[in-house]
Amino acid sequence: MSLPLAGITILDLTHVLAGPFCSLTLADMGAKVIKVERPGMGDDTRAFPPFKDGKSAYFAAINHSKKSIALDLKNDGDRAVFERLLERSDMLLENNRPGVMDRLGYGWKAIHSAYPAMIYGSVSGFGQTGPDAKRPAYDMVVQARGGVMSITGEKGREPVRVGASIGDIVAGMYLCQGVLAALLDRTKTGQGRRIDISMLDAQVTLLEHAIALTTVTGKAPGPIGSRHPSIAPFETFHASDGLFVIACGNDVLFEKLCVLLSLPLSDSPRFATNPERVKNARLLKRLIEAVTLDNTRAYWIAKMTAAGIPTGPIQSVDQVLRDPQILARNMVVDVLDKNGRAAFTAAGNPIKMSGAEDRTTRTPAPDLDGNRGEILRWLDGT
Amino acid sequence: MSLPLAGITILDLTHVLAGPFCSLTLADMGAKVIKVERPGMGDDTRAFPPFKDGKSAYFAAINHSKKSIALDLKNDGDRAVFERLLERSDMLLENNRPGVMDRLGYGWKAIHSAYPAMIYGSVSGFGQTGPDAKRPAYDMVVQARGGVMSITGEKGREPVRVGASIGDIVAGMYLCQGVLAALLDRTKTGQGRRIDISMLDAQVTLLEHAIALTTVTGKAPGPIGSRHPSIAPFETFHASDGLFVIACGNDVLFEKLCVLLSLPLSDSPRFATNPERVKNARLLKRLIEAVTLDNTRAYWIAKMTAAGIPTGPIQSVDQVLRDPQILARNMVVDVLDKNGRAAFTAAGNPIKMSGAEDRTTRTPAPDLDGNRGEILRWLDGT
Repeated sequence: MSLPLAGITILDLTHVLAGPFCSLTLADMGAKVIKVERPGMGDDTRAFPPFKDGKSAYFAAINHSKKSIALDLKNDGDRAVFERLLERSDMLLENNRPGVMDRLGYGWKAIHSAYPAMIYGSVSGFGQTGPDAKRPAYDMVVQARGGVMSITGEKGREPVRVGASIGDIVAGMYLCQGVLAALLDRTKTGQGRRIDISMLDAQVTLLEHAIALTTVTGKAPGPIGSRHPSIAPFETFHASDGLFVIACGNDVLFEKLCVLLSLPLSDSPRFATNPERVKNARLLKRLIEAVTLDNTRAYWIAKMTAAGIPTGPIQSVDQVLRDPQILARNMVVDVLDKNGRAAFTAAGNPIKMSGAEDRTTRTPAPDLDGNRGEILRWLDGT
Repeated sequence: MSLPLAGITILDLTHVLAGPFCSLTLADMGAKVIKVERPGMGDDTRAFPPFKDGKSAYFAAINHSKKSIALDLKNDGDRAVFERLLERSDMLLENNRPGVMDRLGYGWKAIHSAYPAMIYGSVSGFGQTGPDAKRPAYDMVVQARGGVMSITGEKGREPVRVGASIGDIVAGMYLCQGVLAALLDRTKTGQGRRIDISMLDAQVTLLEHAIALTTVTGKAPGPIGSRHPSIAPFETFHASDGLFVIACGNDVLFEKLCVLLSLPLSDSPRFATNPERVKNARLLKRLIEAVTLDNTRAYWIAKMTAAGIPTGPIQSVDQVLRDPQILARNMVVDVLDKNGRAAFTAAGNPIKMSGAEDRTTRTPAPDLDGNRGEILRWLDGT
């Protein structure tokens, strides 16, 4: 049993969410992550609510399993420590505004020249190039500008933010893919590469069907509530006691649904094929709901599941954290405190891999500068 | 100039979105992707609207840069071809219902025994284990069950689906991370690993702040429209001509905003720190909007950008496709037809990497079985 990134050391200058989300995934796969923070404040998210015993649960959820050292990269003594860390690291991650690392003397060119095998991963709001490279961004700015908000929300109403921070998270995931590909490439070439991820770019990749619709029809889609734009029936339906989801991605599933509901619709030209069902989705929803309103969610979910029709409840987060399937997959883990007691709850590692232990607990999120002594001793080889 | 996955061959049995999204990223990074489809129908998404010249733009956006061969894995002749492909491949990707590959004789154990270096990547609705492993799922089922829908939408109204298919896409991205880590690991061990991704698991990882809120406060968050739950001000605001976003992630940015709006709020105990601003977010929004309603979006975005405050418009997809920053980053690419003419539009590769060409066009999405001859000749070495 070994984790696939055992032996990889990551020097992580990132803060807030996109970069730390990337280094969290790398830590979950076995990498050693040294989080380098500003003295005094540290990562902004240390101040994000909610708090427990004075510590941010938000920070803990994203930064467990990492070590922290506080370094001022404008101070000569701290720079010397940072450079000793660079010598021992496989990868540098940073999410400063483009140009900041160059001014510190730690831009890609300087690092690549001094440490040719170093992978250099950057994530920023708009990327290292282009007219807006130096503008600041947060999750919501790129959700808005990148188009995802324009297709999220109820029809005819104002767009809404995706409740999860996908502006940051998806960018962090691409950074993770890029640095892993670069590590693989380095085994052949011995050379590091620079990865440049833009949060705005990452949002564009989420628009698969929306780009297709816009470019083929000439008209940009708007928000459509809980429907899928290109598949039907694929949305929420009312049962007698609340909402649930039915998702029929092909004709076979639709036929099964018609049989189950005793609604002989699949022979009608209006519903025989998916393109016709998409055209007539509102009528189709009313017809299906006419039947589903007759019984409870639990009844329909059980019956449809038995028939092999994709269905499920809309769960609140507390329900998610108790869901037997999610618990069986070890997707809710305890973040420990220094005394080995469960202190916070975090999402587990979704990358289940043969030969790699799927740990049920996580080492604590570090206090600011909390591992300085340990890290310095490691550098000294003592 | 070389792409980091040049020389990697992927045998891709996946269809619809999660798996094909993964293999698309791998193709964009230089891998050779051989898409194995069912004879007759092929990938379900070949029938998804919109269509152009009889071809699905949706399918093209996700399957360009791949080769297609149609094989019936229950037919002996086709199995022989498939096994010759296995001998030449680094990785097998599949998204069948758990158990299906075992029944075909191509489950993980059989493959690992016959081809010990093969990486085996699976993505399914609920994963290979747990009580619901064999249930079917689509994007919307896991968006609903996984909790993201419960925090997306307007306060006090029904939850909405995220307009992008993040149930599939995020799972496909984790599959990509897993197989890349396994490829790296294989350079040390010579052994392949099995990656098991559940779409539902992947949704849980998007709940960073929501899990923290639920476990610390005991209360699950609901949808809150266009606000961030843990940061303020971080939401949409009305200008005189429409909506735009202001995102102040720390006190320094909030102070800059107060100066710009001539609103001396940062000294007030209600707004001095982010936790206080979150508590008083509705009042804060009304105060800010009292000022922003006085001028246009363009005016405020220009002024705030000059002051270094994260801001931006809410863009529709047609605006996204014309955005100068997005175009400067080569994030809108042409998918060519067989005659080398631009046929479809797709998102570009968000993983910008030094030494790797960032191509501005993509080879065509394959016709069903469209590369059979070429693939058979490659197997024959002719």
